[in-house]
Amino acid sequence: MTGREIDLRHHGDAEIGDGLADFAVNVRTGMPPAWLADRIRASVADLAAYPDQRAARRAVARRHGRSVEEVLLTAGAAEAFVLLARVLEPERAVVVHPQFTEPEAALRAAGHDVERAVLGADFVLDPAAVPDGADLVVIGNPTNPTSVLHPAAAVAALARPGRTVVVDEAFMDCVPGEPESLAARLPAGVVVIRSLTKTWGLAGLRAGYVLAAPGLVARLAEAQPLWAVSTPALVAVEECSAPEAVAEAEKWAVELGTERDRLAAELTGRGLYVVPGARASFLCVRIPDALGIRALLRQRGYAVRRGDTFPGLGPDWLRIAVRDRTSNDALLEVMGELGI
Amino acid sequence: MTGREIDLRHHGDAEIGDGLADFAVNVRTGMPPAWLADRIRASVADLAAYPDQRAARRAVARRHGRSVEEVLLTAGAAEAFVLLARVLEPERAVVVHPQFTEPEAALRAAGHDVERAVLGADFVLDPAAVPDGADLVVIGNPTNPTSVLHPAAAVAALARPGRTVVVDEAFMDCVPGEPESLAARLPAGVVVIRSLTKTWGLAGLRAGYVLAAPGLVARLAEAQPLWAVSTPALVAVEECSAPEAVAEAEKWAVELGTERDRLAAELTGRGLYVVPGARASFLCVRIPDALGIRALLRQRGYAVRRGDTFPGLGPDWLRIAVRDRTSNDALLEVMGELGI
Repeated sequence: MTGREIDLRHHGDAEIGDGLADFAVNVRTGMPPAWLADRIRASVADLAAYPDQRAARRAVARRHGRSVEEVLLTAGAAEAFVLLARVLEPERAVVVHPQFTEPEAALRAAGHDVERAVLGADFVLDPAAVPDGADLVVIGNPTNPTSVLHPAAAVAALARPGRTVVVDEAFMDCVPGEPESLAARLPAGVVVIRSLTKTWGLAGLRAGYVLAAPGLVARLAEAQPLWAVSTPALVAVEECSAPEAVAEAEKWAVELGTERDRLAAELTGRGLYVVPGARASFLCVRIPDALGIRALLRQRGYAVRRGDTFPGLGPDWLRIAVRDRTSNDALLEVMGELGI
Repeated sequence: MTGREIDLRHHGDAEIGDGLADFAVNVRTGMPPAWLADRIRASVADLAAYPDQRAARRAVARRHGRSVEEVLLTAGAAEAFVLLARVLEPERAVVVHPQFTEPEAALRAAGHDVERAVLGADFVLDPAAVPDGADLVVIGNPTNPTSVLHPAAAVAALARPGRTVVVDEAFMDCVPGEPESLAARLPAGVVVIRSLTKTWGLAGLRAGYVLAAPGLVARLAEAQPLWAVSTPALVAVEECSAPEAVAEAEKWAVELGTERDRLAAELTGRGLYVVPGARASFLCVRIPDALGIRALLRQRGYAVRRGDTFPGLGPDWLRIAVRDRTSNDALLEVMGELGI
């Protein structure tokens, strides 16, 4: 940590624009698939009616083998963090870093103090990093920005009486078969947050959900604005929870994995440190003078995500989204020209 | 007041379905106009990117002659009520009833006590109904469910140092020229809430906004989830704020007014009490045994909104949405067959 105030509200979307090739934002580029875009467009015919969540909620419950009462639909995972920050009343909130910064920002905005448990070597989950007295623990799995996937058992082991463990699984569908997800298990005290944004190219639609015990879901719903999730987002949630869609996402995740591992090997071959065991749709890379490299890449038309706004990283880190092979090769070529 | 607990979370959308003709929900029926539906559908191509509010915020600011810093975009007016309830810290919150029940529900959900100032004869605003000590006053204009339009000067006169006056203008675009709107004036301490839902048939999209002093807008934004308004909703906000769209809405409002006044005269001619001076897209009607009448109408295929869930009304009240002349005549005919 540098001692300066970190801007927790800086996100990859602020790094793109001006025609830059986007390796900064953790969303599948392009558009949602044609079949999904068609369904979302068709929902415009139903916009005069208030949103009706029932079908989408049932679809999510079925997808994860949960009851409907354990499902809260939200306007993206970002809303879930705000609702949790508002409803939970932690005495001692601990956020495991490096991690997506919105959960901490939401907790602070709701008036809570937040402690940071910063993981050490290779950002592997170390239960000892979490203080015993924490009654709220927030962790990402797989983790943004490190791409590390923690074992489900290790995450579940953080749970204990009197403690809520919030697991941000926004990128879990990058992992074929989702073996480390707690969505289908949902141990007592565990809250799972999911997003459709990344895999389905729906960042603009605001679609996500929370899986939690029925009592907590009811309290979160009470704090949520009426009709919080739009009809087009509900259509997307329902469609993307269908078995065929889950299978399609898994196929994509397998392809992503191959390309991610290739890109990681290329970067490692150039002497860069890539956080090992990457399982999400991005790589976390240590490179001396990362901010300078980032600036040079921007001059060449390539946007990568600065790492210094993540607690636990610093000015020598970048997050690089994994794109298709052609795009990744183009980035690698430019890096080569810069002597990397 | 009947003494029993009123369900503040009952809304017209719960009264429809089963093929009933909808005179219960305060939204223009059918679909958004074709040009607007086209623009919303086109936005699906941009969903992979996170929402960018800048153009929509500028459009709203221009539409009301405000600065961009005075505009907060929200996922419908409902989100605005929740944000205000969370950010404001009233010692003594007063809601002027009868009125849309979500503001009170949101204040209570945020832990605030709420006093009700219930208006008397014809539901005209009586400043004396609002206690001097109130530091937060919430009022609708024109008012749901009474359809009464209060003079701008009377609403503005509620403002005073140390008090916030929240004016729900969700139905103001039903009033041609909007002479009683405070949006363009925004006196100190006044907060105006607007919605695109009703006039544009966009209830399912969740699009609204708040106009307030820059300091309050910044505090509300801090409490709002990141990327709270979806890209399709932003497109709708921008499009509906353009001068051509405002002119189209005004033309519709003029037609609505003619038909509303005709329907009101018909009902009055049958000996019913229709709250006088109706200026919104619905009528508030007193009729003995309104709940029984409502049940009979449902049997005949017509849904009207029960009035008894509005504080200040009771079991002898209905709210009837104004539809097109043919639909309204069909309702009148069925009422005639029921002896009304």
